[in-house]
Amino acid sequence: MVTSPKPIREEAELATGPCKVALVGFGTVGRSVARILTSRNSQDLQLTHVFNRNVDRKRADWVQNGVQWTQDFDDVLNSDVDVVVELVGGLEPAGEWVGHSLKSGKSVVTANKQLIARRGPELLQLARANGLHLLYGASVAGGIPVLLGLQEGLGGDRIHRISGILNGTCNYILSQIENAHISFAEALEQAQAKGFAEANASEDIDGYDARAKLTILARTALNAGLEPEQVATRSIREVEEIDFAYAHDLGCTIRQISRAEVKDKTLFAGVQPALVPQASALARVTGSQNVIVSAGEFGGETVFSGHGAGGDPTAVAVVSDLLWLSRNRHSRVAAEAKPTSDLSISGDFKTAHYVRFKVADKPGILAALANVFSRHEINVDAVLQQAGHSKAALPFVITLEPCRVEKLHQALAEIRKLEFHVAPPVDMPILT
Amino acid sequence: MVTSPKPIREEAELATGPCKVALVGFGTVGRSVARILTSRNSQDLQLTHVFNRNVDRKRADWVQNGVQWTQDFDDVLNSDVDVVVELVGGLEPAGEWVGHSLKSGKSVVTANKQLIARRGPELLQLARANGLHLLYGASVAGGIPVLLGLQEGLGGDRIHRISGILNGTCNYILSQIENAHISFAEALEQAQAKGFAEANASEDIDGYDARAKLTILARTALNAGLEPEQVATRSIREVEEIDFAYAHDLGCTIRQISRAEVKDKTLFAGVQPALVPQASALARVTGSQNVIVSAGEFGGETVFSGHGAGGDPTAVAVVSDLLWLSRNRHSRVAAEAKPTSDLSISGDFKTAHYVRFKVADKPGILAALANVFSRHEINVDAVLQQAGHSKAALPFVITLEPCRVEKLHQALAEIRKLEFHVAPPVDMPILT
Repeated sequence: MVTSPKPIREEAELATGPCKVALVGFGTVGRSVARILTSRNSQDLQLTHVFNRNVDRKRADWVQNGVQWTQDFDDVLNSDVDVVVELVGGLEPAGEWVGHSLKSGKSVVTANKQLIARRGPELLQLARANGLHLLYGASVAGGIPVLLGLQEGLGGDRIHRISGILNGTCNYILSQIENAHISFAEALEQAQAKGFAEANASEDIDGYDARAKLTILARTALNAGLEPEQVATRSIREVEEIDFAYAHDLGCTIRQISRAEVKDKTLFAGVQPALVPQASALARVTGSQNVIVSAGEFGGETVFSGHGAGGDPTAVAVVSDLLWLSRNRHSRVAAEAKPTSDLSISGDFKTAHYVRFKVADKPGILAALANVFSRHEINVDAVLQQAGHSKAALPFVITLEPCRVEKLHQALAEIRKLEFHVAPPVDMPILT
Repeated sequence: MVTSPKPIREEAELATGPCKVALVGFGTVGRSVARILTSRNSQDLQLTHVFNRNVDRKRADWVQNGVQWTQDFDDVLNSDVDVVVELVGGLEPAGEWVGHSLKSGKSVVTANKQLIARRGPELLQLARANGLHLLYGASVAGGIPVLLGLQEGLGGDRIHRISGILNGTCNYILSQIENAHISFAEALEQAQAKGFAEANASEDIDGYDARAKLTILARTALNAGLEPEQVATRSIREVEEIDFAYAHDLGCTIRQISRAEVKDKTLFAGVQPALVPQASALARVTGSQNVIVSAGEFGGETVFSGHGAGGDPTAVAVVSDLLWLSRNRHSRVAAEAKPTSDLSISGDFKTAHYVRFKVADKPGILAALANVFSRHEINVDAVLQQAGHSKAALPFVITLEPCRVEKLHQALAEIRKLEFHVAPPVDMPILT
């Protein structure tokens, strides 16, 4: 049922001039947004305010005259802007500012994945209650119009699975370990030197950035009431160069994969390093690009890829949302889509597994491992051992037939107690 | 400037119930649409009419009771349906029915690429004049939400190039010549046996289907006033298995590529077989899938791929349009986007070229060819000749540095008159 929200303005008051825009945050993305708005010189969008802390050091002479530069957020709230573009990031004060903006009759466009992942449903509700729009196309995969594609373009399908590469930093690091034959630490250092890694590298490499994006995608595409903490999340820190050598032997590569799937009334959601076939869309994304693959009951697989981060691509998503808003700001706000309520949430995917051991070699190791897996009713698929490694720290791999992750981890807990390990075993799902 | 169209209904009359839908055409796509609508059992869309010639042989018992089956189009026009879904295809009578529907106050959703390519702007104008919507997301690339992605999702960018694989039949045929090592004629026969090739195979293989889609994409993404006849269009009939062998030597494969690019106030538009790098997104699309790559000034390259044809994927696009309409049917109709008026249109791309000869071998052939190219100021890049072919019909390839197509064709017109040819030379662009 379409319900009519309380209109904040009467029809007669509807503005017909350009949509007035306040930029809140004038960093890399903010400057790109201003540059695009300036270069469009459009009749439908007018930049009227730029807010930033210590705004004087931000002031840019290429921004048109008449724009008010301010470091007092109340100047934005008390103005007649139609839309506030929040580009500050983080939960607070961004969340407070978004809330105040909506309560003051201003629609909001944001690129803030953490805020939307944590408080999206509540803020959308607030926007609806005020007959306003809250748009966040830039919060996932930057310039790739995947949220719109899933919500509107594939709205007629029943999507049951999404998987993707949502963090360009991890993709860069893993690609570098693979292609430049360097260690994780060296690849991370390179990424930081090139400015790919965000201020807190843990956000990226430990999966918190990707899980926020996956949360938003799952809500949009799978209509699932997911919270970021419910996503089974694992770091890529354990991945070594040797793992790529073995992955290649299996026709695969290793990527940080975010995935969510609805099966038997359960939503499985996870972010972790995984083996993916080299011929798959997930493996082919290079450098800092992003890709999202959706699978629908009627439309099958659809792939979206492109630049998932960076000032300009993210600004494209912001300006696209602004243009949509300028055309639709007086249209009825869509009713809330109630998330499917009977889904339980789990990270306990059933998949094939790759387990890499590093051992001080001696007779009987394989028998001991096979014995534990057998007791846990896990079937060994293959054993891979490349020549040329030291017997003192011998890396080899066991692949396992599909089983639940938790079952595997129970077996690995036992295996870790065995005495021949030089390093703890590393396990990753093999996605097909 | 946003202009307000004449509203066809007063605000007070606005229906708030479900959006009533008439299906016009109950073939593969129509049945899929009905099936999705039936399985959604949604509150917002209600199938009320199915129109088809000789409707009695089409009647399906799984369609809910209460739907009126008719072979008289006036039953649709005189009903209270909100939207007519045109799935008849072809220019007439589909065009007449779409026009009558819009004049009778009914919005239209269509999958008809030929109609939209030829009469889209005029029919959109008619829809706008009546305050109605004409949506055609299903007309290009079936289930891939690329029109929406380009128009709305990347609306904030300035897109200057689109290229893609828009015809699954050609992609299947070329893939089969490449992988099954069969002739064009055999591959076409297979495609027809499998039901991939449309009734008139020429539509597909000679590029008319793809050029209609490219026309619609170029209007949407490049804001260009393009007509299908202005697209430089070449058949894939000349491509032979030997061309794949040489393409592979160049790190490429051969695909039917549709592309449009704005450069120096000229819109270049073409549909033709071309060499594309094996590592590119265009090369990786297999079987009957479609892909579209857009390039924007700010967002860089964005890739959309998936199922571009078939009943269910096309129906997903239709139902997605219907859902959009059910939410937005009373919203203001967007003002006409005036196409950029100062673009001249050309098929005379500047690219590198592949030219394959088949000759009765004798001394002096290469000198003669080099001589002609030199006189036309075209630089030869490389000469490729694989061993093991008969001297009586020797295939070899010359690659040329970038030059305009027309210049090449002038040189080839001279070359064709030389006496050593066993078959006419075949030229294709090499895209990088």
